[in-house]
Amino acid sequence: MSQSSDDARTYSRAHTERFRHELFELLRIPSLSGDPAHAGDIRRAAEWLANHMRDAGVENVEIMPTAGHPVVYGEYLGAGPDKPTVLVYGHYDVVPAAMEDGWDTDPFEPVEQNGRIYARGATDDKGQMMTHVNALESYLKTAGRAPVNVKFLLEGEEEISSPNLAPFIRDHLDLLAADVCVISDTSMPSIEAPAITHSLRGMTYIQIDLEGPKEDLHSGLWGGAAHNPALALVEILGKLYNPDNTIAVPGFYDDVVALTQAERDMIAKTDVSEEQYKQVTGVPALWGDQRFTIRERLAARPTLDINGMWSGWSGPGPKTIIPQKAGAKLSSRLVANQDPQKIYRLLKDYIESIAPKTVTLKVELLTEGRPALIPFDLPEMQAAARAYETGWGHTPVFTRGGGSIPVVADIGDMLKIPVVMMGFGLDSDGLHSPNESYSIEMFHRGIETAIVYFEELAQLPR
Amino acid sequence: MSQSSDDARTYSRAHTERFRHELFELLRIPSLSGDPAHAGDIRRAAEWLANHMRDAGVENVEIMPTAGHPVVYGEYLGAGPDKPTVLVYGHYDVVPAAMEDGWDTDPFEPVEQNGRIYARGATDDKGQMMTHVNALESYLKTAGRAPVNVKFLLEGEEEISSPNLAPFIRDHLDLLAADVCVISDTSMPSIEAPAITHSLRGMTYIQIDLEGPKEDLHSGLWGGAAHNPALALVEILGKLYNPDNTIAVPGFYDDVVALTQAERDMIAKTDVSEEQYKQVTGVPALWGDQRFTIRERLAARPTLDINGMWSGWSGPGPKTIIPQKAGAKLSSRLVANQDPQKIYRLLKDYIESIAPKTVTLKVELLTEGRPALIPFDLPEMQAAARAYETGWGHTPVFTRGGGSIPVVADIGDMLKIPVVMMGFGLDSDGLHSPNESYSIEMFHRGIETAIVYFEELAQLPR
Repeated sequence: MSQSSDDARTYSRAHTERFRHELFELLRIPSLSGDPAHAGDIRRAAEWLANHMRDAGVENVEIMPTAGHPVVYGEYLGAGPDKPTVLVYGHYDVVPAAMEDGWDTDPFEPVEQNGRIYARGATDDKGQMMTHVNALESYLKTAGRAPVNVKFLLEGEEEISSPNLAPFIRDHLDLLAADVCVISDTSMPSIEAPAITHSLRGMTYIQIDLEGPKEDLHSGLWGGAAHNPALALVEILGKLYNPDNTIAVPGFYDDVVALTQAERDMIAKTDVSEEQYKQVTGVPALWGDQRFTIRERLAARPTLDINGMWSGWSGPGPKTIIPQKAGAKLSSRLVANQDPQKIYRLLKDYIESIAPKTVTLKVELLTEGRPALIPFDLPEMQAAARAYETGWGHTPVFTRGGGSIPVVADIGDMLKIPVVMMGFGLDSDGLHSPNESYSIEMFHRGIETAIVYFEELAQLPR
Repeated sequence: MSQSSDDARTYSRAHTERFRHELFELLRIPSLSGDPAHAGDIRRAAEWLANHMRDAGVENVEIMPTAGHPVVYGEYLGAGPDKPTVLVYGHYDVVPAAMEDGWDTDPFEPVEQNGRIYARGATDDKGQMMTHVNALESYLKTAGRAPVNVKFLLEGEEEISSPNLAPFIRDHLDLLAADVCVISDTSMPSIEAPAITHSLRGMTYIQIDLEGPKEDLHSGLWGGAAHNPALALVEILGKLYNPDNTIAVPGFYDDVVALTQAERDMIAKTDVSEEQYKQVTGVPALWGDQRFTIRERLAARPTLDINGMWSGWSGPGPKTIIPQKAGAKLSSRLVANQDPQKIYRLLKDYIESIAPKTVTLKVELLTEGRPALIPFDLPEMQAAARAYETGWGHTPVFTRGGGSIPVVADIGDMLKIPVVMMGFGLDSDGLHSPNESYSIEMFHRGIETAIVYFEELAQLPR
């Protein structure tokens, strides 16, 4: 390693506490992208980021409008045109969180405990995103320059599946031109076993709304001759699954590329045992498609999940009504080569075909995203592996991520560059759950690994 | 009719506006019995009632404690021991209501429009309950005496199925001793066709709670190997019903007394057409057990209704989780001779037998009540029919009510007196629904009919 990357790493170690406290400022902003009531917080988060990036030495920082929440852009081009340019993607928006969901502490007042930072967005993605800003600062405040050019593309709509990011990229191909994209928004099984994600699932997210009577009916006066929308929903949802826990929607699996034996062998390297799964999740027993291992089910197979379901009275005590309506949110995790739009049509057509005529039905697409698969023999992927070796002292394995970052496929296709998913989260971080947290050690190892990765990239033959 | 009942009716007509404005005061108190946060409002409603009854001339008015919300008791014994005593039962509690449920006006700020009073509790039961207080006042403020003795038993827990009323009655048999009980808490199909309810259904109300993982799981990280509690709930609820819309719980129908042809003929007198049902409820098509007419299904057959259902995320936008838990509220309307405790055991045993081992299950009894059937050839029932003839100019028919007033069976059994359900509501009042209302004409006709009924009762041979 060069003197400048050693100096940068030393600087990052000397400023660990400040980096954390700056991250806390960002975590305190409840930047929920899915709830219009929080549009102001999204704006505040973007402004905080822009100001912070300017302080770190990033140039031409700008809050750029989209049809939805803004993108925060910034760049450092001081390495010069003969050095590679890294496009750092991250997102400053978060999913909802409230004490009543089971948080032990206020989700928007970060707390350090047991070596972890507890807050919504700690690992997904504010903590991981800041890694690269802190890494660049560590170069600029020591050597005064970094070994590569860096561009930041930080969006505020990842948690609602980035509806406006693809158009933004298409409109700014020159501004965003780069040699490689790096994203830290994934996780590894444990701190001792670094892993780089090379595959992500896509998504089709729908909402079903049923309406029966024009208002809630007194069940004693009117029940018995009206189809209860809650029951109609139960009937419809029940028909989406087969007894073997596979998905009953005709055509759903048609485009799934079968796993090769080599792929199954690689996936087996990070398989989890039934005991491990039960311990992490707390479920009393496992479930799923028995033809596949647990890790295959978690990351390499498509799913159809009920994310939410509602009808009638859920408050305290009894209420004797036939509810006016019922609804559900359903998301499907997709694998190569499933197309989210085709899956939406299959779901909609099937649900419409099985819905009883005693209720009215609406099926709506909420979000979608394509799956992504990045070959792990690319030089930029191997450079990332070397950076982890330096940061961790261990060679990382390449794994499939079960989550969805729709922009990975978009960036790869539109900017025609490899996307390297340098995740610094842990599978146990509880992202999207109550008590989401981020390991403080992972945060600081991540910054050092990002520092080394910039140098590794600078040394690749061009 | 006697001079004193004529004078009382004249008085009641002269004070219609004041009676309504007094009712408004009571309707403004959100006396929700099912929500602990409203215990203070329940207390305020009881105090308002007690004060108002004293002003009307009722004696020995007292707010009497129970293990739950208090009973308001009061009496007028001035008719003397040779005259019959009428026990008036009513309830001052209401079910929940909120603007977001679809109310056009604040449910706790009564509004007069189109000859109706819009407010939660307008018909169920504050408006109907006040009928008898206003009727007694009309005698006491004119003749200075009433033709019968009157006792008031007004409770605050009817909407949570009166858990503490039976013990209260058992502890106060002497205080409550009477010759007949009258309850105005039922309705008739239309203002032109008066009807007296002689049968009510019972109830078993349960709550099902399922838990899967220890917290919401990120569906991309952990989905595929955990049984989604929402899906487990769908599977369980789906197995409670047969394809012909009957209830699949083994033994559920065992104790149901079959309807005789004579009973079916009587029920046919108030049958509703498919068109009428669709118009009132707004459903696109009818549903139910095709072996029975609509009115039979609404009032004379047992049901099992999903009153509420919940799991995971129901807010705006997407959230990609495997929910931690799922739940449902289910109520069963029972007919003679079904026993609510036995039905609870049948439901619990069956649900426990079909629940998958991949989730944990809790089945809980929320409330229960026995069905009631009062012969309509009793003198007190025939006296009620004559009172309606005077108040309305039409002979009423006797009908079966599909709703549940558990106390009807309790009062009949414990005090050994007939219970006459002199309902002054209309089936279209929308009780338990948004925009509940009470016809102003029904309110005032009810007061006059109650005035006449007191006199009719006084004239019965003893």
